[in-house]
Amino acid sequence: MNDLLHQRVARSFAAQGLMETLGATLAHVAEGEVHIALPFAAKLSQQHGYVHAGAVTSIVDSACGYAALTKAPEGFEIVTAEFKINLVRPALGQRFLAIGRVQSAGRLLAVCTGEVRAYAGPGDDFKVVALMQATMVNVAR
Amino acid sequence: MNDLLHQRVARSFAAQGLMETLGATLAHVAEGEVHIALPFAAKLSQQHGYVHAGAVTSIVDSACGYAALTKAPEGFEIVTAEFKINLVRPALGQRFLAIGRVQSAGRLLAVCTGEVRAYAGPGDDFKVVALMQATMVNVAR
Amino acid sequence: MNDLLHQRVARSFAAQGLMETLGATLAHVAEGEVHIALPFAAKLSQQHGYVHAGAVTSIVDSACGYAALTKAPEGFEIVTAEFKINLVRPALGQRFLAIGRVQSAGRLLAVCTGEVRAYAGPGDDFKVVALMQATMVNVAR
Amino acid sequence: MNDLLHQRVARSFAAQGLMETLGATLAHVAEGEVHIALPFAAKLSQQHGYVHAGAVTSIVDSACGYAALTKAPEGFEIVTAEFKINLVRPALGQRFLAIGRVQSAGRLLAVCTGEVRAYAGPGDDFKVVALMQATMVNVAR
Repeated sequence: MNDLLHQRVARSFAAQGLMETLGATLAHVAEGEVHIALPFAAKLSQQHGYVHAGAVTSIVDSACGYAALTKAPEGFEIVTAEFKINLVRPALGQRFLAIGRVQSAGRLLAVCTGEVRAYAGPGDDFKVVALMQATMVNVAR
Repeated sequence: MNDLLHQRVARSFAAQGLMETLGATLAHVAEGEVHIALPFAAKLSQQHGYVHAGAVTSIVDSACGYAALTKAPEGFEIVTAEFKINLVRPALGQRFLAIGRVQSAGRLLAVCTGEVRAYAGPGDDFKVVALMQATMVNVAR
Repeated sequence: MNDLLHQRVARSFAAQGLMETLGATLAHVAEGEVHIALPFAAKLSQQHGYVHAGAVTSIVDSACGYAALTKAPEGFEIVTAEFKINLVRPALGQRFLAIGRVQSAGRLLAVCTGEVRAYAGPGDDFKVVALMQATMVNVAR
Repeated sequence: MNDLLHQRVARSFAAQGLMETLGATLAHVAEGEVHIALPFAAKLSQQHGYVHAGAVTSIVDSACGYAALTKAPEGFEIVTAEFKINLVRPALGQRFLAIGRVQSAGRLLAVCTGEVRAYAGPGDDFKVVALMQATMVNVAR
């Protein structure tokens, strides 16, 4: 089943031009939870050299949307209705991981929470740099 | 004065790697209001070929932040504390314009609203595709 | 037509126990825009004696919901999916007016913006104390 | 220490007229986490007889604010800058519990998450009816 879930998400992810533009990759797919990885790059910066809120937002919006997709009925896709994000720390790091989780999935709407973790090095230590709360809509394909 | 305002914003805008990566340009700077333009490009797409919510968000977050910068005391910069965005329509169009406006500016925090307009052609007709409400923080440089 | 709109909203408003508990009244109903009035009362306070964010939120959430109701198809009601509110100033005043406006109304979802105005006296001078952006859902009765 | 924390929060809670008006009580105070209880009452209803989004919001906003207060420096108080709330299910139940938790506390701003649980009966079974993400500001008394 996880293989089918992964395929469903990966097919859609590959069609997102923006993810390739940013250098983001699909890191993990499970029922109700999706991870997207993003290495640091100067092309993603805001004016102080940190990663721009817009890039941070892009990966965690996609992670939340794909988490919702893993819970959506067959034949449905997901579009983002709205989200709110707090940038709790400057997005400083070698690499970033966006985690999206479904908190509640109805027939029509799903509510997801997301976080973005910044890793200073190759180890497991991270700091949370952003928190998201999002509403996704199921739309018939 | 508008020249100084424009310089202040343009200098910071030029340092945002992400704006260049997306193809966004600074279109208008006035006290309390900033516009950012973005032509459509496939590299900005989500899975249906529309512009990704993350790209839409990136330009209107920057427009709101720079609107706040036009109201910030000398020697201060702006960082985004948080924002909320509604994607009210698919981001379909030849070009997009993000407008950020300051609604309330205190010593510490500014509250801004933003919208993103989609233009199907070269004329003035547009549809609003996104609405933002954001909180910006003044930080000493 | 405005009479029918007003009736539709007033009938539902009268059924909201919380509005009576707070002392709020329906002040204006037009297509896409609803106003709710609230006089100051100590029973609404937070710890500094201002009106509590929760009371401010309650009236502008209702104003947004009823604005959406004026645009909803016959036989449908409105429930709040989510909202975001900025409390831009302490809610100090003799009386308050919440204004909800529909920005975009689809078959399923409506996006509304709202503001709450504080009046220090009987005149027309006011200060905006809160800004809301909300998503409402049409549900069949 | 928990006694001092509890006193700090309880003193402020007792000064919130709105909490008494709603019938809410302070249920638990720990460092970074505060619970507020609310029994169902018809005076809190929206038009379908559920608890109004405004009442749900009031208790979880206060829970988040008081959670932030437990982390604030001596001599500081908390005001809500903004929050976003998803009403994920109708607020149906005999009693409700709002839980506010600090996710990140800086010198100036704290970011909190909150949830509201609905209990159908006297047991421990609950459903989450609302999720909040909030920004609180430390202000010198």
